[in-house]
This record gives sequence, C-alpha cells and structure tokens, in this order.
Amino acid sequence: MATGDDARWMRLALGLGARGLGRVWPNPAVGCVIVKAGRVLGRGWTQPGGRPHAETVALAQAGAAARGATAYVSLEPCNHHGLTPPCSDALVAAGVARVVVAMTDPDPRVAGGGLARLRAAGLEVVTGVCADEAAALHRGFLTRILRGRPMLTLKLATSSDGRIATATGQSQWITGPQARRWVHGARARHDAVLVGAGTARADDPSLTVRDLGIRQQPVRVVLSRRLDLPADSALMRTAREVPVWLCHGPEAPEAARAAWDAAGARRIEVPAGAGGQLDLGEVMQALGAAGLTRVFCEGGGMLAAGLLSADLVDELAVVSAGMVLGAEGTPALGAMGIAALAEAPRFGLREVRALGGDVLAIWGR
Amino acid sequence: MATGDDARWMRLALGLGARGLGRVWPNPAVGCVIVKAGRVLGRGWTQPGGRPHAETVALAQAGAAARGATAYVSLEPCNHHGLTPPCSDALVAAGVARVVVAMTDPDPRVAGGGLARLRAAGLEVVTGVCADEAAALHRGFLTRILRGRPMLTLKLATSSDGRIATATGQSQWITGPQARRWVHGARARHDAVLVGAGTARADDPSLTVRDLGIRQQPVRVVLSRRLDLPADSALMRTAREVPVWLCHGPEAPEAARAAWDAAGARRIEVPAGAGGQLDLGEVMQALGAAGLTRVFCEGGGMLAAGLLSADLVDELAVVSAGMVLGAEGTPALGAMGIAALAEAPRFGLREVRALGGDVLAIWGR
Repeated sequence: MATGDDARWMRLALGLGARGLGRVWPNPAVGCVIVKAGRVLGRGWTQPGGRPHAETVALAQAGAAARGATAYVSLEPCNHHGLTPPCSDALVAAGVARVVVAMTDPDPRVAGGGLARLRAAGLEVVTGVCADEAAALHRGFLTRILRGRPMLTLKLATSSDGRIATATGQSQWITGPQARRWVHGARARHDAVLVGAGTARADDPSLTVRDLGIRQQPVRVVLSRRLDLPADSALMRTAREVPVWLCHGPEAPEAARAAWDAAGARRIEVPAGAGGQLDLGEVMQALGAAGLTRVFCEGGGMLAAGLLSADLVDELAVVSAGMVLGAEGTPALGAMGIAALAEAPRFGLREVRALGGDVLAIWGR
Repeated sequence: MATGDDARWMRLALGLGARGLGRVWPNPAVGCVIVKAGRVLGRGWTQPGGRPHAETVALAQAGAAARGATAYVSLEPCNHHGLTPPCSDALVAAGVARVVVAMTDPDPRVAGGGLARLRAAGLEVVTGVCADEAAALHRGFLTRILRGRPMLTLKLATSSDGRIATATGQSQWITGPQARRWVHGARARHDAVLVGAGTARADDPSLTVRDLGIRQQPVRVVLSRRLDLPADSALMRTAREVPVWLCHGPEAPEAARAAWDAAGARRIEVPAGAGGQLDLGEVMQALGAAGLTRVFCEGGGMLAAGLLSADLVDELAVVSAGMVLGAEGTPALGAMGIAALAEAPRFGLREVRALGGDVLAIWGR
C-alpha cells in the first residue's frame, strides 16, 4: 500500500534520475532512493553510459543498512542478465523489505518480471506512485521501446511573428543570452542534437553544449540526402572529439562517404521517401535502432515542417523574442500543405515562463 | 512625507481607477480613496463618459467625515474649470488634510497647478507614490496628452509558427475559448477597436465586446483608404447601435461617403502617405484629436506591419496556440522591409501566462 510519504521520496528519486538525461542512452535515466525510518540511506541514478544502474549505486551507498528498508525506484527494476546482474536480485540480496516503483518497464525483457521476482522473494511491492512524472522523465526511453524511435523535441527560436532570420539571413541574435543558455541546457538533456543539411551549410554550427561544464556531449546528427556538406565544416573538423552521425540516402556519392568516414563520422544510410527526400520515419527508426532515446531538433524550417507533418514531434519548445521581422523574414517552418485548420498538428501546453526578456513555451503532443 | 501605508491605499485607488479604462475617454481613468485613521470613508473612480471625476465621487461618499482625512488619487487633481469645478477646490472645501498623488498630470491645463492649489490652501501633499503603476494605468491618457495620439495595443493571435490563417483563409479557431474571452476583455479596456479594410471585408467582424455584461461598447474604427467596404456588412448595419468610425483618404468616392453617413458612421478623412496608403501617423493623430486614448488593433497583417514600421505600437499582445500551420499559412504581419536585425522593432516583456491551452505574452515598447 502506498503511504503519504511515498510520493515525496519518489519525487526525490525522479529528480536524481533526471541527472542522467542525455547521458545514459540507450538505458533509461532511473533514480533510486533507499529509505528507513524516514532517513535516506542511499541515493543513486543511472551513471553515464547507462551503467551501473541506479539501484546498484543506491544499495552500495546504503550497505548493510539496506536490510528492512524501502527502495524507491522511478522505473521497475530490471530482471534480466545484461551487462550487469539484475537489479531485482540485488534488492532481494540486500534484504530490502519494500520496493516502491513509479511505473513498470515496458521493455519486453522486463515487463513486470522485475516486480514478480521481488514479490516472489517476499518483498512488499507498490507501483504507480508518481506514475505521470515518471512517464515524463522516461518519455525518451518509453518512446524507443514502444515505437522504435527516440522521443523528438523540436525547438523553434523565433521573433514574435514566427520568423527565424531576416530576408538577408541574419539570425544572431533574435533571442537573448538566457534563452541561448536554456538551449544549451536542453541540448545537454538530450542524447543527440539534430539539424538538416541546409542549417549545417548555412550556419556551420558546432552544436555542442557550451559553458555548462558537462563532460559528455550529445551526438550531433545531420540529415543530408546527398551528403553534400562542406568538407571544412566545424562538424567535420571535430568529428573525432564529439560524435557526428550523418543520415544520408542511397545516392550519396562514394567520395563524400569516404571523406566523412575518414573524418571519424558515423554514416547511417536510410531509404528515400516520397519526393526523393529522406523518409523521416525511417531516419527516426534508424536513430532508435542506434540507441538514441532523446533527440533535440534545431531546424531548419524544412526539416522541422517535415517532422511535424510526419507526426514525429513529441515536444515543441518555442522561444519567442519581443521583436518582429515581417513577412520577408525566414519562416520558422517550411511548407506543410495544410489547407484546413483541422489538419494542423495540435499540442497541449506543458509549461510557459519568461526566459530573461524572451518567452519559453513548451507544448506536448 | 510618504508612509508605509500610502502605497497600499494608492494601489486600491489604482485598482478603482482601472474600472474606468475604455469608458472615460478623453479623460483619464482616475481612482480615489478617502482614508482616515486606517478606515476607508470614500471610494471613487472616473465615471463612464469621463464625469464625475473620481475625487467628486469619493468625497460625496465620505461626506463630512472627509474633514482631516487623507485622499489618495492616482493622478494630480484637476485645477481648471471645465465641465465640472476643479477637484483641487473640492478637496480643499471638504477639509481634507493630506493628499497623496501617484503622479502629476502633464495636461498643460493642470501640470502641477492642482498640487500648487492644494499646497497654497495648507494641505500636505505627497507625490510619486506608485508612480510606475500609475504611469501604466494612465498610459493611454498620457500618450494622448504628450504625443497627440492614443496609446496603441496590437494583438496578434497566431499559431506557434506565427500564422493567423491557413492558405485557404481558415482562422476559426486557432486559439481557444479562454483566449477569445481575454480578447473581449481587452477590447472592453480600450476606447476603440481598430482593423484594416481587408480584415473588415474578409471577416465581416462585429468587433463588439460580448458576454462580459458591459454597457458601453468601444468605438469600432476601420481604416479604408477608398472606403470600399461592403454595404451589407455587420458594421454598417449596427453603426447606430455601436459607433463606427471610418478613416479614409481624399479619394474615397462620394457615393460611399454618403452611404456611410446615412448609416450613422463617423468619417475621418486623413491625407495619403507614401505609396498612396493612408498615413498611419496622421490616422493616429486624428484619432487622438477625436478624443481616443486607448486603441486595440486586431489586424490584419498589413495594417499591423505598417503600425509597427511607423513605431506606433506601444504594446504587443501575442496569443500563441499550440499548433502549427507551415509556410503557406497567412503570416501575422505583412512585409516590413527589414534587412538587418538591428532595424527590427524590439519590445520588453511585461507579462507572460497561460490562457487556457494558449499562451499570452505582453510586450511593451
């Protein structure tokens, strides 16, 4: 049975789990707290690279004191022998008396098996505590398990009239320093940053997380059907320092493939879709197969429109600045072929707040 | 000398004054509270039509008890014989001992004269209490006095990518019921609602405040250079019930002028500006000369872009919906001819909040 305190401890576990976001793929960013008599004996979260698991870290911290304690875990403990022994076994071995879990793990290798193992060993098991918050924390992992692709966040940083650059291409800076800092934080909480080839060519972006003191950079993914990206780009120069993945079509020429291979990039060939463009659903499936659970797309407008049209956007993060650019400015989204309002993709409001002098609105599908 | 309680009572006066917004033009929406020994003896605000003034109402309520009391007034009391005797005289006659004023009235007929009259009569006078809030409350009045034109609020209700309709013109509804209710409230707080001729033709809007139980509707102002508006429009049919003002150019044909005159509309002829369009600065000056202090513009995109380009927009109210329409959608703003980011009009964030499932951001110049 769940108690009044359970939600409080689970929120602590969820907060710890969130520390792993962007650094534990393909694993979920789990948090775990070991509590006895109102005192925290151990705290753990999935470590960078996905191992050790949160339960292992928390149990090691608690040591022998874990006997008779309650373990709060943001996701059902695993029950399968992977690269580490099952966490359900570890909880049993440590003598934990009660396990409170936010949600079951839909991974077919777990899927209730972890909870069954705990119950079979005589532990009290409670599930569904802070289940909604856990679903939000684990959205990337769940999307990959259930749909085969990473969760996708699409960022738009626009003027108040939805423009991302002047007619002459100027875009630095529409939004202010606090908004740009938020963007770097959001990159860090995702496994990968994604842009289209047009953006890669126009802006020569580095797409790294700066000034936040993080050690593991997100993968940089560029979509380029023909692999026609400049050879002297920041991405190519730094591909050995921070991973660069290139999704391209079958028609990418051999020379370009060889050049990027030599630079240390990873290439992912995907079939062409309608109109000769890359099939974005296939791209996302390929990124899921490669292990990514959370992808942060930063444009450009054609890629963004394509992802929205294909219903591949799970979260829309719009940063709006208090300035206007008028109809000649570059639109945030390319053509979507929407004739009637009923066809337009709609999102629910998750969060809105000021970000310095700009506004951040987060919308969810 | 100001006391700690002064700001508290002044905020009450400011709140009362705000009740008059949209209904007291060309007068300011003043609030007044009469306080003695921590008790409120009288509360008043400028009445619809601009008379009686807030001080008169509050003093009448306080009666003889006003002797020795403090009067809190959101704007310097008037000192000139207009349609009513001066409020400064009334405060003196009532035996008020102390007058706390948020800000002086820049109207040249007052401009410190009201305060001087009070001081000459031996009353203690304190100014500058809640001056910023008062400047915000009286922004419309101040703009008209100081710049000869009404304050202008520009509303944009857009998709998350800055579109106000699909390519086929569908716009009902992009934003939700709470956002639309906010729009009706905002109309009620302004003296007039302004649209361009294109919007009047395309939407046949009534531009009235609905479902808020108000008695005095804002004036409906339409800009139409050639006065080429449909004769069977909602605006023409109802011009005798709720005022319709038409701003047109010298080239408006006689027949159209006569038709609108017969319908009961008021016509305001303004000179043409560059490119044959109405000179928007002249339009705003004409609306100020006609007494308007607060105008709420609801589009369309060409008029909105023109007002922004001419630096006539004091406040930008953007309602964003969690949906996207893509580049074929109608942009919120027409062409502005902005090449470099430095030329783009910038606004500071005043307020941001959720409005049901939509987002409201208010930006100020």
